[in-house]
Amino acid sequence: MKIVNENGKNKAVEVNIAYIGGGSRGWARELMQDLALEERLNGTIRLYDIDKEAAKANEIIGNATFARAEVKSQWKFQVAETYESALTGADYVVISILPAPLTAMQVDVEYPQKYGIYQSVGDTVGPGGAIRALRTVPMFKEFAENIRKYCPNAWVINYTNPMTICTQTLYTVFPEIKAFGCCHEVFSTQQLLANIYNGYYDANIARQDVYTNVYGINHFTFISEAHYQNVDLFPLYRRFIKENAAGVVDQSKNWMNKTFGTKHLVKFDLFNRYGIIAAAGDRHLAEFCPGTWYLKNPETVAKYAFELTPMSFRFNLEKERLEKTEKLISGEEKLEIVPSGEEGVQQICAIAGLSRMVTNVNVPNRGQIGNLPLGAVVESNASFTGDSVQPVYAGNVEEPVAAIMRRHISNQKLLIEAALTGDYDLAFKAFINDPNVYLPLDEARKLFDEMLELTKEYLPFYDRYTSKK
Amino acid sequence: MKIVNENGKNKAVEVNIAYIGGGSRGWARELMQDLALEERLNGTIRLYDIDKEAAKANEIIGNATFARAEVKSQWKFQVAETYESALTGADYVVISILPAPLTAMQVDVEYPQKYGIYQSVGDTVGPGGAIRALRTVPMFKEFAENIRKYCPNAWVINYTNPMTICTQTLYTVFPEIKAFGCCHEVFSTQQLLANIYNGYYDANIARQDVYTNVYGINHFTFISEAHYQNVDLFPLYRRFIKENAAGVVDQSKNWMNKTFGTKHLVKFDLFNRYGIIAAAGDRHLAEFCPGTWYLKNPETVAKYAFELTPMSFRFNLEKERLEKTEKLISGEEKLEIVPSGEEGVQQICAIAGLSRMVTNVNVPNRGQIGNLPLGAVVESNASFTGDSVQPVYAGNVEEPVAAIMRRHISNQKLLIEAALTGDYDLAFKAFINDPNVYLPLDEARKLFDEMLELTKEYLPFYDRYTSKK
Amino acid sequence: MKIVNENGKNKAVEVNIAYIGGGSRGWARELMQDLALEERLNGTIRLYDIDKEAAKANEIIGNATFARAEVKSQWKFQVAETYESALTGADYVVISILPAPLTAMQVDVEYPQKYGIYQSVGDTVGPGGAIRALRTVPMFKEFAENIRKYCPNAWVINYTNPMTICTQTLYTVFPEIKAFGCCHEVFSTQQLLANIYNGYYDANIARQDVYTNVYGINHFTFISEAHYQNVDLFPLYRRFIKENAAGVVDQSKNWMNKTFGTKHLVKFDLFNRYGIIAAAGDRHLAEFCPGTWYLKNPETVAKYAFELTPMSFRFNLEKERLEKTEKLISGEEKLEIVPSGEEGVQQICAIAGLSRMVTNVNVPNRGQIGNLPLGAVVESNASFTGDSVQPVYAGNVEEPVAAIMRRHISNQKLLIEAALTGDYDLAFKAFINDPNVYLPLDEARKLFDEMLELTKEYLPFYDRYTSKK
Amino acid sequence: MKIVNENGKNKAVEVNIAYIGGGSRGWARELMQDLALEERLNGTIRLYDIDKEAAKANEIIGNATFARAEVKSQWKFQVAETYESALTGADYVVISILPAPLTAMQVDVEYPQKYGIYQSVGDTVGPGGAIRALRTVPMFKEFAENIRKYCPNAWVINYTNPMTICTQTLYTVFPEIKAFGCCHEVFSTQQLLANIYNGYYDANIARQDVYTNVYGINHFTFISEAHYQNVDLFPLYRRFIKENAAGVVDQSKNWMNKTFGTKHLVKFDLFNRYGIIAAAGDRHLAEFCPGTWYLKNPETVAKYAFELTPMSFRFNLEKERLEKTEKLISGEEKLEIVPSGEEGVQQICAIAGLSRMVTNVNVPNRGQIGNLPLGAVVESNASFTGDSVQPVYAGNVEEPVAAIMRRHISNQKLLIEAALTGDYDLAFKAFINDPNVYLPLDEARKLFDEMLELTKEYLPFYDRYTSKK
Repeated sequence: MKIVNENGKNKAVEVNIAYIGGGSRGWARELMQDLALEERLNGTIRLYDIDKEAAKANEIIGNATFARAEVKSQWKFQVAETYESALTGADYVVISILPAPLTAMQVDVEYPQKYGIYQSVGDTVGPGGAIRALRTVPMFKEFAENIRKYCPNAWVINYTNPMTICTQTLYTVFPEIKAFGCCHEVFSTQQLLANIYNGYYDANIARQDVYTNVYGINHFTFISEAHYQNVDLFPLYRRFIKENAAGVVDQSKNWMNKTFGTKHLVKFDLFNRYGIIAAAGDRHLAEFCPGTWYLKNPETVAKYAFELTPMSFRFNLEKERLEKTEKLISGEEKLEIVPSGEEGVQQICAIAGLSRMVTNVNVPNRGQIGNLPLGAVVESNASFTGDSVQPVYAGNVEEPVAAIMRRHISNQKLLIEAALTGDYDLAFKAFINDPNVYLPLDEARKLFDEMLELTKEYLPFYDRYTSKK
Repeated sequence: MKIVNENGKNKAVEVNIAYIGGGSRGWARELMQDLALEERLNGTIRLYDIDKEAAKANEIIGNATFARAEVKSQWKFQVAETYESALTGADYVVISILPAPLTAMQVDVEYPQKYGIYQSVGDTVGPGGAIRALRTVPMFKEFAENIRKYCPNAWVINYTNPMTICTQTLYTVFPEIKAFGCCHEVFSTQQLLANIYNGYYDANIARQDVYTNVYGINHFTFISEAHYQNVDLFPLYRRFIKENAAGVVDQSKNWMNKTFGTKHLVKFDLFNRYGIIAAAGDRHLAEFCPGTWYLKNPETVAKYAFELTPMSFRFNLEKERLEKTEKLISGEEKLEIVPSGEEGVQQICAIAGLSRMVTNVNVPNRGQIGNLPLGAVVESNASFTGDSVQPVYAGNVEEPVAAIMRRHISNQKLLIEAALTGDYDLAFKAFINDPNVYLPLDEARKLFDEMLELTKEYLPFYDRYTSKK
Repeated sequence: MKIVNENGKNKAVEVNIAYIGGGSRGWARELMQDLALEERLNGTIRLYDIDKEAAKANEIIGNATFARAEVKSQWKFQVAETYESALTGADYVVISILPAPLTAMQVDVEYPQKYGIYQSVGDTVGPGGAIRALRTVPMFKEFAENIRKYCPNAWVINYTNPMTICTQTLYTVFPEIKAFGCCHEVFSTQQLLANIYNGYYDANIARQDVYTNVYGINHFTFISEAHYQNVDLFPLYRRFIKENAAGVVDQSKNWMNKTFGTKHLVKFDLFNRYGIIAAAGDRHLAEFCPGTWYLKNPETVAKYAFELTPMSFRFNLEKERLEKTEKLISGEEKLEIVPSGEEGVQQICAIAGLSRMVTNVNVPNRGQIGNLPLGAVVESNASFTGDSVQPVYAGNVEEPVAAIMRRHISNQKLLIEAALTGDYDLAFKAFINDPNVYLPLDEARKLFDEMLELTKEYLPFYDRYTSKK
Repeated sequence: MKIVNENGKNKAVEVNIAYIGGGSRGWARELMQDLALEERLNGTIRLYDIDKEAAKANEIIGNATFARAEVKSQWKFQVAETYESALTGADYVVISILPAPLTAMQVDVEYPQKYGIYQSVGDTVGPGGAIRALRTVPMFKEFAENIRKYCPNAWVINYTNPMTICTQTLYTVFPEIKAFGCCHEVFSTQQLLANIYNGYYDANIARQDVYTNVYGINHFTFISEAHYQNVDLFPLYRRFIKENAAGVVDQSKNWMNKTFGTKHLVKFDLFNRYGIIAAAGDRHLAEFCPGTWYLKNPETVAKYAFELTPMSFRFNLEKERLEKTEKLISGEEKLEIVPSGEEGVQQICAIAGLSRMVTNVNVPNRGQIGNLPLGAVVESNASFTGDSVQPVYAGNVEEPVAAIMRRHISNQKLLIEAALTGDYDLAFKAFINDPNVYLPLDEARKLFDEMLELTKEYLPFYDRYTSKK
């Protein structure tokens, strides 16, 4: 990458982005859309995916898109067969994988219901998050090792869940890595705040006009201060909750929240409990709390007006996407070039030194959150400048909420160690410490063992675990 | 106090002990017993109790006891009418109060059952512990202020529950205080370990021969290492649990555990979960864990073979004690001079510089427990020497257990602040964060408000709370 | 203050600034200049100074300036007779005082030469800084108490030296204060970096185009990373030093550095020692290091090509300024409306929510510098947004440099405690721990006592100190 | 090792001690003396020394001594040819080496005088300590690696200087090691306190009767509290200093202090500065302070009445010892069986579970000293029990003294990293940050390079360093 000045404008040319994964998920195409609209970046995207066909599809769609007249930049897409060819010389690495087929995720999400444990997403914490971590961490170990080997100075952007565990693994394996995790959940809540302001003042501010102080762990992130200009938005939010005690239908862009018509009642309940604004979808927030609060049984879920994402929905979605892919490859359809709502491309610009910005990311706690453990990956604002992402001090999390977070952080640390060393007994310690796992010890062990058995083909240390018994 | 040498033996004479409370509880008499057996200490005990009659009773019983020939030391007992007369010149202050009549405790313990919340003790954590804290903290504030005023250099020994909160309050109000909290729960587990050793090796070691590394918060304390000489007792404990999976009947001296025939099944379950030895009675341990584990309902309690201490038991016990007191005053009965099993008198000797010892106490965390918050009152070993009690470094608590502890520590901090400032809304934040309170927010508020209402005469800020609404 | 939209532009109107001090120093006028150029701010400046005439002079000059056609904003200047009238309703408080007449500063700077101790500035650390702290801290205590009383929500900007000690005192007395300290020393080094870049690349970048990661304590601040766009400026700086081993003449705006023709040789020597870029004038940097390094004697000072600021210079400067003031009052001269180079007005805009910026300030360490003590006022970047200034994580200071800083931080803490409690014996502990005070204990005590004696009229606890002896 | 009960007494039999080094130093024989007097320990000592003859000599002397009738225990001494044979099965490892011939130490101690830098010992800090560290650390790396390999559960006792750096290296290389460093310097100060008490009260207490709270880093350790029984010894010490301002002749057993007739004037000066009792010989204390305080030049040294240990003294001493060894081997002389004054054997008993004790040791800071960095090897009391050595919380070091300590801790960390990685440029950063190295950068570099050159045969990475230039 180098910065050049063309007609009085600075731009980055010869930018190298290595894209790991992306085959089956939306983000690869959203990246294409945003790059197509950003005239300051040009270069090459090398696509690496264990699913070669998926990488090939992205190559075709990407190159077709950038052959169109209306794009504002030049990008070449190339399938890379090896880590070496994907990563060597990379300025940025983007990671967005699905750690196993949806059939494995089905076990994560639905199987615990046999034991009376309900999950609304199942990919972050809870029994599902724990098992998913065991199969994802080894992959991120591999990524970190290859990045250290082939492009130790590259900036690494992770979009994969469980976000915290994936990003933490990168830092555990390669402590000097320049990585951060991105998630759009906070944006939706910023949008909600903008909407509330606009509603009360008949104004038209955008979510970017709302400055929020963000702290927490991904999917259980909170806003402790929010301003539009110097107007404190907390009194407005409080008033809004009072006037909308039955909830409001989510207008956010996030497809899942929208599809399932959450009414923000979990978010409002948490505000009534703690006085800070939860900044993630209700489906995520519920899973971090004691299981008896929002996920006790389907009736409780219904009362709070969110839903348990059924796997059928995910299977359908996957099918639709594959069909869409076919059409994009054949040229029957064209990629629609509109802003995705993600900030990845702006972050890439800022790291290239073309602009400066402050936004929320997931990086190890260096002290930006005073009462969460140092070293744990946390979510807060960070300042993006040339070759630099520095967390902004966010303060201490409201104590009772911090207590909940520390419990999950403790679990995440155990799960990573368990997944790296293959000590699944250690993982079980985390499993039973999850606030949504309130089974007697023997039942918990049974559930844990059955979930491992059902997903064993994705668990590198499964044999060692069973042989030890 | 001064140290003199008589016939080649060092002893402390003119020792001044101020005794706050003690009217209705056993410890005042246990202190008499132990002092009567300890020839190295002599002096005066000034008795201060808001219940003047109770103080008077102890004065009579104390002076009668030390008039007997078989005592090994000289002590005078005097009722003190004011803090000033009780505390001025004190070398030691012993605090052992009951913060309100048993009728208030009845609300703490039994009322939450209306909402399906069961408690086995109800004086430490849980809804009962929270409400009890609100009425106890203001008293300890008063104690701390008077100690600062009249005897800032005295050593203060607290025996009152909630132990952590009471001791923490002393340090919050008077940070330079030389205070520590004592509890015999750990001794029972040391005795259990001695018993196990004796059983397997046909030996006869005493609990004092077992050296344990202790960490945690009072009533949720754990042993991470245990040796007799250089023999590691953990493998023995593990074997014992396997061979006694149905539990063993508690042989400990502790009257409550004994009475209710706990079988250590909670203790064993926690060992199976985390690999460290819980060192408190099962009735206490259960209350710190998520309510769904051991206290879900009476059946679960029965399954783990402990009991919900019924208030009828406490009322009976109180009655028996009062009758016993009458007999001791009238001389119909004499105080039995046998070792109490407590260590208070040995600690007093060590602080006088007559001996040195290492034993477990509750003091603010200065770093002795690496992964619990600094400043929080924690339980660990401490080294006792002349005018000095220094915590011994105990290591990091096993992570998932530490996560549970930090949640309670966070609550305790909030409760103290709430009780000191009269901000009961803050107390409610702690109330709903207790792992045994898993009610919807509105129900939790109802329970909280009702418990306050029912005990309002002991709550100094109750009017402010209700008027604010 | 409120934000309004006029002709599509947001601006703050009815802004209230309380200005404490400023009578004899340049910053009051620099503020006028910058405000006159900033169309987004309008309001009132209330001038409070114990020197009433000085305040009156600023009132006249200020109102005259804002009567001129070329100013872009409307400001009214008013002398305030009391703290109450100055502070009530203030949105911002600016503090810029001289804590005593120059005759006292003459003692600070020159008297220690009798004992062979040379100082190049004498207002921050060293014997001069210590004594100056003792008379300044009580004033800042007064400021903090009045701010708490009359405008606890105002933002407080301090320009007074010793910067760290003054700002720390504000937070010690009123922990919830929203204060920060500003200093332009770092700007000069950013300018130096821009100059170096421009020189090597025949470019024309401004200091604002250089992004630096800043850490340290005021006047001993360092840059650990510096980029223009994504170009790392460290290799350039290294090359520049090699090619300019004899030093370069300072081109910076800072009048003192310029006047005395520093050649950056201290800065270069520190880079050769530690590999990070010192970001303050050489005269300041030298005073933080062991006295034997750069200030051993006048020859050593000459060798490193900086100068001991003579007091005659300061007296002359003061005289010139007073004459200039006369002319500005009489109208013989007019204030020149050009940018001052300071960032105060931009910071005020950002806090008003009109823009966002990241720049360096002095605030308590919340973790932004990992290896300096928490709570100590340190210098690092901070993110400025509406009603918010949040430090940006700056990393760990290069260890041997951190060791020097911690020594001064330790001294500063002692000096503040000493000045607040009147315990000058405590101050002496700091005095002898300064790296530039390497006298035998008795000589050090003599120097300390003599300096106190000579400035006793400004030392509120002087009598207590001498009577104790 | 196992514990048996013989005639009602517990004793440890089949104890295995591996002794590394010891050839030329006194401690091997002192260990023999103390073991001969301790009836509770029996076993084998395997002697490993790169100087095979020295090991052989100890074998002969040891076996001869334990053949005598008056010994109270049975010990066998065996030369071990390899780490494997020395360490396999060891219960304890004792390390006491001289890291190079005295000719190398001569460079450490005397060479810097060419540049005007005086050192009184030259083996701990200062230029001599730094260079000595570079050749000692690699040896301790080797020890740690072999201990991990052959006896990871053994307890390791280090007696080698630089104590802190050696012990820190063991933990750096093998973090789970059970090691501590022992030094008798504190004992002398405890003896001084006992002497003072005895003098004023015509008493006869022993140093063991004095309980001291100890904190600091080895050879710069301080006592913050000292009691005999509950009598505070600080007022006595203060009075003593006043009455003996000209100093007192050291009566301590330590041969070096005694030989050179220190008068404790450095110790007294430090007390006058900071109010805490320095607990090491003046020769050591002086080296940690800024060079201008006590070591400026020979006149300053004379004024404080200590001496620069001349190398001639060490050469003579070595000669005498070798002669003595010859006589012990030949049987011309017999080892005198008297207590050595060291505590090693008592510590070994305590770790065997035969007794409990609290005494001072050097181990990594886990929080026992609140204001020194976590992980740094510090000196404080520790509680010794069966298979366990746990630091006792010692409080925060008086701030200005802590600032000096942190500077050395920072240097020690750098030196270890430098010696392990071979990055001598890093070592130079520590070298110039020593308070006794106040040379201009170029002279400091010259001195550093010359000292390396003169001792290069003991520096494993010397070639790499010079080739890089």
